[in-house]
Amino acid sequence: MDKVNQLNVKKDMKVSELIGQFDQSGVLGSGRVARASNILCDMINDVGMNVFMSLGGPLIPGGLRNIVTDMIKNKHVNLIISSGANITHDMLEAFGGNHYRDEGRDDEDLNADGIGRIADINVGSDDFTIFEREIIKIFEDISSRKSKISIQELLYEVGLLIDDENSFLATAARMKTPVFAPGLIDSMFGLQLWMFTQDHDFTVDAVADMHYLSDFVFDSERIGGILLGGGLTKHYTLASTLLKGGLDSAIQITLDRPEAGSLSGAPLQEAKSWSKAKCGSTLETVIGDVTIIFPLIYASVLDKI
Amino acid sequence: MDKVNQLNVKKDMKVSELIGQFDQSGVLGSGRVARASNILCDMINDVGMNVFMSLGGPLIPGGLRNIVTDMIKNKHVNLIISSGANITHDMLEAFGGNHYRDEGRDDEDLNADGIGRIADINVGSDDFTIFEREIIKIFEDISSRKSKISIQELLYEVGLLIDDENSFLATAARMKTPVFAPGLIDSMFGLQLWMFTQDHDFTVDAVADMHYLSDFVFDSERIGGILLGGGLTKHYTLASTLLKGGLDSAIQITLDRPEAGSLSGAPLQEAKSWSKAKCGSTLETVIGDVTIIFPLIYASVLDKI
Amino acid sequence: MDKVNQLNVKKDMKVSELIGQFDQSGVLGSGRVARASNILCDMINDVGMNVFMSLGGPLIPGGLRNIVTDMIKNKHVNLIISSGANITHDMLEAFGGNHYRDEGRDDEDLNADGIGRIADINVGSDDFTIFEREIIKIFEDISSRKSKISIQELLYEVGLLIDDENSFLATAARMKTPVFAPGLIDSMFGLQLWMFTQDHDFTVDAVADMHYLSDFVFDSERIGGILLGGGLTKHYTLASTLLKGGLDSAIQITLDRPEAGSLSGAPLQEAKSWSKAKCGSTLETVIGDVTIIFPLIYASVLDKI
Amino acid sequence: MDKVNQLNVKKDMKVSELIGQFDQSGVLGSGRVARASNILCDMINDVGMNVFMSLGGPLIPGGLRNIVTDMIKNKHVNLIISSGANITHDMLEAFGGNHYRDEGRDDEDLNADGIGRIADINVGSDDFTIFEREIIKIFEDISSRKSKISIQELLYEVGLLIDDENSFLATAARMKTPVFAPGLIDSMFGLQLWMFTQDHDFTVDAVADMHYLSDFVFDSERIGGILLGGGLTKHYTLASTLLKGGLDSAIQITLDRPEAGSLSGAPLQEAKSWSKAKCGSTLETVIGDVTIIFPLIYASVLDKI
Repeated sequence: MDKVNQLNVKKDMKVSELIGQFDQSGVLGSGRVARASNILCDMINDVGMNVFMSLGGPLIPGGLRNIVTDMIKNKHVNLIISSGANITHDMLEAFGGNHYRDEGRDDEDLNADGIGRIADINVGSDDFTIFEREIIKIFEDISSRKSKISIQELLYEVGLLIDDENSFLATAARMKTPVFAPGLIDSMFGLQLWMFTQDHDFTVDAVADMHYLSDFVFDSERIGGILLGGGLTKHYTLASTLLKGGLDSAIQITLDRPEAGSLSGAPLQEAKSWSKAKCGSTLETVIGDVTIIFPLIYASVLDKI
Repeated sequence: MDKVNQLNVKKDMKVSELIGQFDQSGVLGSGRVARASNILCDMINDVGMNVFMSLGGPLIPGGLRNIVTDMIKNKHVNLIISSGANITHDMLEAFGGNHYRDEGRDDEDLNADGIGRIADINVGSDDFTIFEREIIKIFEDISSRKSKISIQELLYEVGLLIDDENSFLATAARMKTPVFAPGLIDSMFGLQLWMFTQDHDFTVDAVADMHYLSDFVFDSERIGGILLGGGLTKHYTLASTLLKGGLDSAIQITLDRPEAGSLSGAPLQEAKSWSKAKCGSTLETVIGDVTIIFPLIYASVLDKI
Repeated sequence: MDKVNQLNVKKDMKVSELIGQFDQSGVLGSGRVARASNILCDMINDVGMNVFMSLGGPLIPGGLRNIVTDMIKNKHVNLIISSGANITHDMLEAFGGNHYRDEGRDDEDLNADGIGRIADINVGSDDFTIFEREIIKIFEDISSRKSKISIQELLYEVGLLIDDENSFLATAARMKTPVFAPGLIDSMFGLQLWMFTQDHDFTVDAVADMHYLSDFVFDSERIGGILLGGGLTKHYTLASTLLKGGLDSAIQITLDRPEAGSLSGAPLQEAKSWSKAKCGSTLETVIGDVTIIFPLIYASVLDKI
Repeated sequence: MDKVNQLNVKKDMKVSELIGQFDQSGVLGSGRVARASNILCDMINDVGMNVFMSLGGPLIPGGLRNIVTDMIKNKHVNLIISSGANITHDMLEAFGGNHYRDEGRDDEDLNADGIGRIADINVGSDDFTIFEREIIKIFEDISSRKSKISIQELLYEVGLLIDDENSFLATAARMKTPVFAPGLIDSMFGLQLWMFTQDHDFTVDAVADMHYLSDFVFDSERIGGILLGGGLTKHYTLASTLLKGGLDSAIQITLDRPEAGSLSGAPLQEAKSWSKAKCGSTLETVIGDVTIIFPLIYASVLDKI
């Protein structure tokens, strides 16, 4: 049996040193973080592995936008599956909008001031007004060239038209990193898209992405997963790998619990039964808030790769 | 201030009597259940209110299929927003398949035997083989008549072709209760649909449902919500009501927690800031496992309406 | 493999019928509730089994006082291990005090009005003033007869002096059901006790209870456990059974999760490794709010025993 | 309103730089961590503040022993309130015992091999045998000098007899940092203590500590709290400050949730209503695994004080 080594912290400690201490301890949450850090390091170092990352929950409003963008630039991630909301909020910032810290006001008061709340994050309706104005211009541009499009193609075309190097959607387009969003319609982006299609000849095909996605999966020697929150985005990522017999390795970060059976809290082991993770694959779940845990893990990985 | 009355239980107690005791106590989880029961009762009794129900998490595999079907038959629910998985598992049972209780076997062993696991529920690959065979027949039937269809229309057509009075999809079709599934593609149903569209002229429009849904919302005098689990299905339900300024009343049941900001655990109050629930609306969240809490609430409501 | 039967609810349904439906389904939360109900039924029916119940969390303020008292009267429980708070709040009601439903006021405002908050329950300082006055009389009575006492003996003597048939402490004293409270000092009761001992010759022995408890355990043919919340009260109950090789069967109800390792969320299986539950014992954990789940289970058991 | 700044990570990043980025973002979990770090920094820098730390949950088995010991050596903490288990496991390591990483074996198998499990941590019975042999020697030494003792005095005397500079109990004794353990009896330490008192004239007074503790509180200009897990240890810490009107500032780290009302998951704000935290005090709760979050926070604080 491996011993639990008591961990040490010190002044001027690097993040990777702290995770190294977690690795020496190896139990409870700190052990999970250390193992997830090691797995992510191995995934990035493996040149034959394509890394898929799912973005569920308010990651972009919650401060992880630059990390996602850096990972794309660094080719540490090769394919993204995002909620519609994360795409919407990425674009909102690209168009000059901002997210703000909630001051504990009542939701009815926020409503009266045109402020939407996501946990302790606020977004103003003025920024959504700009978002709407800009996205319509983008839709007009794209629809003038194409009348039927898949969601992934649409997001690629949108990304090319966004002028913000910090936008993950723009960066993904420039790096040719595909972005999928199976639930795109359920977002402000989706709402604008629907309204636009009402009076334009522009069809977004709900199933067409599967063709490109299955080719991408088929051409991947090995597949790794970074599963950040999410029910739909998590499952879509897992299910996409069925063609190759499942993920070769993966980490997930979630505060949801497994017993009630919803996919968001399900342990990654469960995916093995469905061939969405390979038997023998390396999997780790960290129970925690993704805005704490993922920056911690990724910063440690930058020192190790 | 209202007093907390100590609650009493007795032999031969009816469910509605127990909930009545919870109402007298009024605090912690039992208070939440009692308030949710009262809200659901009021929603059903309100003839001017359309009740929308979202189905996230493994509700059909988890035993709630007959309750959903009964609610549709009883016109206690007027519109359903389901995950693709719940539709898949409803059809799997309609085609003679079953769900089984997990016996604690290792996921790699289950995989070797062709058994998929959802928490403590098992499903066999033989039943999915039948599912695939039957759904292709259904797609052939529908595609011979239509070449472009929305998801809601597709689910209506599928429902009409299912011969099982316990199927919620079949019952919804017969009762003309619309069923939406914005993330349908992310399911076995979606996978079969994609493969079918590969060699058939059959397009499923991702945004077309919004037209019918917005008309339904617009024609609703008042809207109530029953939000069972879910990130996407919950949000789609909330967002659909924007046109009318949000839900008039709603209950949700979830084990997810709010602090990390994912929608699945968000308090319903937050929806007020976004005009997805009206200011002044009546809202209650019960923290618990939906397979316990919802049958408990619905059984109590049947005695009160 | 056992099939998951879809569960049915109906008008005028008895609680035990609903739990019977949960038993037919057998999975997720409803399956856990059904199994816990069956275990509790068997524990009560087993004449050779002593049932120990631990009371952690705000059970008495939260409405479960009459259920605990009834269980003692019905001899459905044979030994109680309570937090100091539950004893304090039981006595507070015995002395005419009340608990109230919180109206969402700010904690600083509540403080200004002398109101303490426990989640959504309020307690007023006037009721604590009466509590203090009355408990000092009780201490004076007891200390006039004894100068050194164990916690269990003290609680027995206190119980005899409480004139309220709904008090679980009074009922336990009359029924000679021992009540332990290893963390008694950490409560308003404990604070008053300490202040009383400052100027009275009255010693409460911290370890003396172990003698009586170990005899009780040793004389028990079999031991069952009802573990409601709690870190200390849960562990003390588990550990007390070490002398007999652990619990023979047990149920626990908790919303705490296991991964971080605190005992409150630990699965009962873990107790087997420590010989605090027997190998081969029958154990079930229900994930949920105890004020919902325990009345539900106990009401169903009343129909079955 | 304060803007949410997207956070950046980089190679060779120091822990304090990462927390600085969290501070710039300021929302969700990362915002909570940053605020807790700032509060802890202020608490340590405040020469007029005594910092109380409660140790609930398996902190010592889980790898935090050296951090606790360092904090005592560094005078970053002035008073400790520990569970009996953390004291037991500190001593077990002092006597040469170890904790091991669980390998996923069945609890009945572990039992057969004399191994106890705490989540994913294992402890062997051989190490407990040594623990028992050594603690009896210590009790004999102390009881030869004193016949009646409070828990805090006992732990001080025990600490002086432990020869291990990494032991927090030994370090606390040498640094004259008082250690309280109101639930000490509920641990292997407590079990040995009880057995020792069976045939020795040695009384441990359950309420005597309150005198010393109240003097310590009274002499504290200001009081800060570091609340790591715990129901009893957390509450005892909060309640100890009543004499001074409550804590002046505090942080807590927990994975437990508030709705069911148990103290372990209660928000610190609630303590204001009871005067266990001052109105106007600075309080922050981080939702997470303490073995991840506390080392992260403390490492960042070492760079800032």
